[in-house]
Amino acid sequence: MLTINKLSAHVGEEVELRGWLSGKRSSGKIGFLQVRDGTGIVQAVTSRAEVSEESWSAVERVTQESTVRLRGRVNEDSRAPGGVEIHATEFGIDSLTEDYPISPKEHGVAFLMDHRHLWLRSAKQRAALAVRSEVEQAIRDYFYSNGFTLIDSPILTPAACEGTSTLFETDYFDEKAYLSQSGQLYLEPAAAAFGKVYCFGPTFRAEKSKTRRHLTEFWMVEPEVAFLEFDGLCKLAENFVCSLVERVLERCGAELEALERDTAALERVLSPFPHISYGDAIGRLVELGQDIEWGDDFGAEHETLLAADYDRPLMVSRFPASIKAFYMEPDPEDERVVLGLDILAPEGFGEIVGGSQRIHDLALLEKRVSQHKLPRQAFEWYLDVRRYGTFPHSGFGMGLERFVAWMCGAKHLRETIPYPRMLSRLYP
Amino acid sequence: MLTINKLSAHVGEEVELRGWLSGKRSSGKIGFLQVRDGTGIVQAVTSRAEVSEESWSAVERVTQESTVRLRGRVNEDSRAPGGVEIHATEFGIDSLTEDYPISPKEHGVAFLMDHRHLWLRSAKQRAALAVRSEVEQAIRDYFYSNGFTLIDSPILTPAACEGTSTLFETDYFDEKAYLSQSGQLYLEPAAAAFGKVYCFGPTFRAEKSKTRRHLTEFWMVEPEVAFLEFDGLCKLAENFVCSLVERVLERCGAELEALERDTAALERVLSPFPHISYGDAIGRLVELGQDIEWGDDFGAEHETLLAADYDRPLMVSRFPASIKAFYMEPDPEDERVVLGLDILAPEGFGEIVGGSQRIHDLALLEKRVSQHKLPRQAFEWYLDVRRYGTFPHSGFGMGLERFVAWMCGAKHLRETIPYPRMLSRLYP
Repeated sequence: MLTINKLSAHVGEEVELRGWLSGKRSSGKIGFLQVRDGTGIVQAVTSRAEVSEESWSAVERVTQESTVRLRGRVNEDSRAPGGVEIHATEFGIDSLTEDYPISPKEHGVAFLMDHRHLWLRSAKQRAALAVRSEVEQAIRDYFYSNGFTLIDSPILTPAACEGTSTLFETDYFDEKAYLSQSGQLYLEPAAAAFGKVYCFGPTFRAEKSKTRRHLTEFWMVEPEVAFLEFDGLCKLAENFVCSLVERVLERCGAELEALERDTAALERVLSPFPHISYGDAIGRLVELGQDIEWGDDFGAEHETLLAADYDRPLMVSRFPASIKAFYMEPDPEDERVVLGLDILAPEGFGEIVGGSQRIHDLALLEKRVSQHKLPRQAFEWYLDVRRYGTFPHSGFGMGLERFVAWMCGAKHLRETIPYPRMLSRLYP
Repeated sequence: MLTINKLSAHVGEEVELRGWLSGKRSSGKIGFLQVRDGTGIVQAVTSRAEVSEESWSAVERVTQESTVRLRGRVNEDSRAPGGVEIHATEFGIDSLTEDYPISPKEHGVAFLMDHRHLWLRSAKQRAALAVRSEVEQAIRDYFYSNGFTLIDSPILTPAACEGTSTLFETDYFDEKAYLSQSGQLYLEPAAAAFGKVYCFGPTFRAEKSKTRRHLTEFWMVEPEVAFLEFDGLCKLAENFVCSLVERVLERCGAELEALERDTAALERVLSPFPHISYGDAIGRLVELGQDIEWGDDFGAEHETLLAADYDRPLMVSRFPASIKAFYMEPDPEDERVVLGLDILAPEGFGEIVGGSQRIHDLALLEKRVSQHKLPRQAFEWYLDVRRYGTFPHSGFGMGLERFVAWMCGAKHLRETIPYPRMLSRLYP
């Protein structure tokens, strides 16, 4: 069956379409029907004088989100979205929809979220999720074409990294298992087998925070590369982010327009990104009147302030060891800080990338495991990576929904994932 | 840094490499070192007379899985795996490995599974997971290039489809949540928004079975297409399987060779696949002396027997409604059976695809929900898809690990996933 996105190749031809009605206007003599089929939207013009009584009756009766079918001629129309409209000669209703819950009028967010399975059909929701789908393929393509092996890390994991308070727990045949928060630990051994690896799947955080930047279930992509040191990591992350933004600009023009996204802001995302140290960032925040000092972690508002100085993503690196994960390699030039990297998106979209060089010295990592009071036994396999043929390596993680929110200019993460899971949201 | 897979473009040049030692032979005067770096494996030849004392000492001391670096000239060698070997002028050990647990001698499976994080480095394990990675990208590419939108379905779900006995349960902020067994129900509403959609992510089954065909956590790909009816579904599934097999043959030659896979069997996987009805399948099984009758479900041994009649995948369709899921569309020509499709892989690799046309009539689906004693309230949102602009649609699911096992000729699913989760296996 022909789809709407293919119509422009069939100008002058008689075609048949099936889809849903997304809107109509009628003068009593002429009906203008907006029909969508998932691939696009097209206007079908029906004239009472030209169609059967049955067809005209259908035009009059048809309601929003009814399933429809039509036949007609494809006409060029440069003002129309796809460059065409249809001069319909037949129109029928396959399924008449009554009382569709989502009308063009305003609805509250809770109501829309309760009807997420229907809200998906709305233009802006479709656009945001189409951008998401494109970004996901772009991520796959980036790593595939750069020689990475995809290593799916497990969701069900035995070890609790840093306490269990933000972990979802499940009974695993009389053992306890936890839903993964990151695939990194599982990627590091795989980097010794494949050199360059990545994982990209759902991760979980049982956080009781109700902010616009939190989901309990979200997708994260994490590359890990053997023999890659800190400077190379920064280059990889920058190149990755640039390539994704470029792809979105190249292939999601219609979606960004539907979302009323300012694309000029995205076009400025070019290499090289500005790069400051954590120490300089603290200095800048103090200068801006913030109550923060060396050793403190950034909050969302600090990230926004720092990023506001620049028109492209900001790289911040070399954080105090005390506020970062146990596995981060110390800076050889300043033992108080670690070779960690964050990338802050411009326009207040916050941290999108976090990464580091990993400790590869066994004795140092053992010391860190003990300093962080981690259960040594559960980390033996991870220590093995340093025990048997250890190697410098680095990697980062990027939260998919945060990146998509930035691309779409979405203030809240909940519209960047098909079925969001939040503190009080497990349905539908 | 140069990687081994790129060496053939540098014949005659002096190069530097880093990697791990996977084997060595030495005559006392000449050392033959097998070095791998994740992208490939190369032999480095060192001559005592030509290298420094330090380099020669390293050649003598180096052990399996030590991290090494070397410098030397790339020579053409048509007998070598990548067509080249290295005439090394410098060789050094970055990290000496002692007592590597996995030696070339035989180990038991439990031992290897306990050391999965190291076992990944072994040649056959690398090959199987490289095939997996290629198949995953091929799946993404297939749907992307055919206009599907990727819709990630949630892992945390409220409703229990068919009892909770095979579901992993977790506490979700004082509600109960279950780990998803399929994204299908979430895809159907999305098909009304995007026409063609798919999901591809981890799914979970808390089954206490300990067979070679079961994992508790596995990846499943599921397309769902609006206005697609049963015959179109069969074509889609066949085309999908053929395209994946073709891609594996085209791009995984080295891996299939390492796995000693009979590729002739895969080359026979061509359209059209044989297609028999469930009724005919029962007849054939009775003919083969099996104790089975109309209304019974197939066991693994029945699948193997049926598939043995053919040299390519076998499509079986039109099953009794009683042994299939509640949402399957009845066959208009025989109300006792539903428009369900299974595809059985040849060579005894079992069912790889299961799909169906879905019921799109609201009243009939309501009746099925009640007949199957499903909690109506939890399915209201799913019924909405029939309530508001219902449409015929179809889809299928394919288990990634089963497909990869077939490609690799692997008898057990556990070697087709980086970190398998099974009844008694949650570590590492």
